[in-house]
Amino acid sequence: MNRVLLICEYDGTDLVGYQIQDSGRSVQGVLTKALTEVYKTDIKLTGCSRTDAGVHASEHMSSYDAPFVIPEDKIPLAVNAYLPDDVAVKKAMYVDDHFSARFSCKGKTYCYRIYCSPVRRPLVDRYAYHSAHACDIDAMREAAVHFEGEYDYAAFCAAGGSQKTTVRKVLSVTVDVAGDDPHMIEIRVTGEAFLYNMVRIIAGTLYYVGTGKIKPSAIPGIISSCDRSKAGKTLPAKGLTLEHVYY
Amino acid sequence: MNRVLLICEYDGTDLVGYQIQDSGRSVQGVLTKALTEVYKTDIKLTGCSRTDAGVHASEHMSSYDAPFVIPEDKIPLAVNAYLPDDVAVKKAMYVDDHFSARFSCKGKTYCYRIYCSPVRRPLVDRYAYHSAHACDIDAMREAAVHFEGEYDYAAFCAAGGSQKTTVRKVLSVTVDVAGDDPHMIEIRVTGEAFLYNMVRIIAGTLYYVGTGKIKPSAIPGIISSCDRSKAGKTLPAKGLTLEHVYY
Repeated sequence: MNRVLLICEYDGTDLVGYQIQDSGRSVQGVLTKALTEVYKTDIKLTGCSRTDAGVHASEHMSSYDAPFVIPEDKIPLAVNAYLPDDVAVKKAMYVDDHFSARFSCKGKTYCYRIYCSPVRRPLVDRYAYHSAHACDIDAMREAAVHFEGEYDYAAFCAAGGSQKTTVRKVLSVTVDVAGDDPHMIEIRVTGEAFLYNMVRIIAGTLYYVGTGKIKPSAIPGIISSCDRSKAGKTLPAKGLTLEHVYY
Repeated sequence: MNRVLLICEYDGTDLVGYQIQDSGRSVQGVLTKALTEVYKTDIKLTGCSRTDAGVHASEHMSSYDAPFVIPEDKIPLAVNAYLPDDVAVKKAMYVDDHFSARFSCKGKTYCYRIYCSPVRRPLVDRYAYHSAHACDIDAMREAAVHFEGEYDYAAFCAAGGSQKTTVRKVLSVTVDVAGDDPHMIEIRVTGEAFLYNMVRIIAGTLYYVGTGKIKPSAIPGIISSCDRSKAGKTLPAKGLTLEHVYY
């Protein structure tokens, strides 16, 4: 077997998410189709995680077994030739036969961007949530540290998840101002694994902290309540980007 | 009279350019329509410059005469309520009656972005030209300085311009690598005024220098030839962003 790890980037705006669905173009769907064109046989693709419709990725990992060997530096070019403009393979590498993009994954970092200004910015609007209100970054940072640890995150899980347990380990949550624009807030959440919509609900809760609706000191109580209605709103998909996958 | 200067940002991808045209949505068109909604009377808008279909702007200026006074900090919010997602007013200010966004303009800075990598990046593809070849930045910088000065830029003008003279003064041309991505080259051109497609042809000529097709020392000869066929290709509109307008 020739197991291959694919590192992909995609603009999720016009995609239904990672997983193949009948409702439209998915990342897994267009990648599978492109790989089938390259290898002239059906390829089964395993992704490191699903991402929702509209979520972006600057680094998403998938793995598959190739029926024959193509030099790894040639794989991105071969596959990209069959991909639409909004999905691309950045890199490919041969990996051990026991490796799985999904099960070998040790953690992921997501970035949620909030653009805070009374006026919209069309040039960043595709990749950030627009807030007409200013945010208190210090309060958001004070709140963010409370998310670090292993907790039952039921209060930060949308209905519809199929997980056995809602306990997850969050490794770090940081709140930064983007280097090139003081109005752009970047929330980075690193964890071993996440519940359905968990990062977008954490971002929404930090947004409520930033705009004064929730106090930083209230976060531990919200987590321990396991009550979704106590946390902030689920922020829109477009502000979320999968940035790193760890193995 | 209450003359107003509007500072706008737009994502040009789905626009036919600044100027009103029958062929589709223009920046001037959607702004004029929004202003007419706000003031309930026809407004005549004067832009600092046309931009071509697909060209973006993080700072574009327009001026108009308002029939009545709205506090200047309220104008962006009032107008943005009637604008599509890809166009926004960032700021408005009352100016002297003799001021014209077009005729008072002393200069403009455009940025042309080239993303150099064998593989595409969907998350930057909307705002940069993709080059599968690497570029020699030092050669591009050596070439760039030759564009600074007052010259007949006929070799850098697309057919179809209606100007009386093809002499223009270029104040500076710089070539930089973007802070957050070593593959992203940013060419900034500042000048008093530009010919039709001039910045995109200068960028295309610097791209030919970067990829070894034109020597840096050949630039003065290309300028003095006044021969369009000697310069590089016109790079696509999507890589170009109007960044600053000077008064």
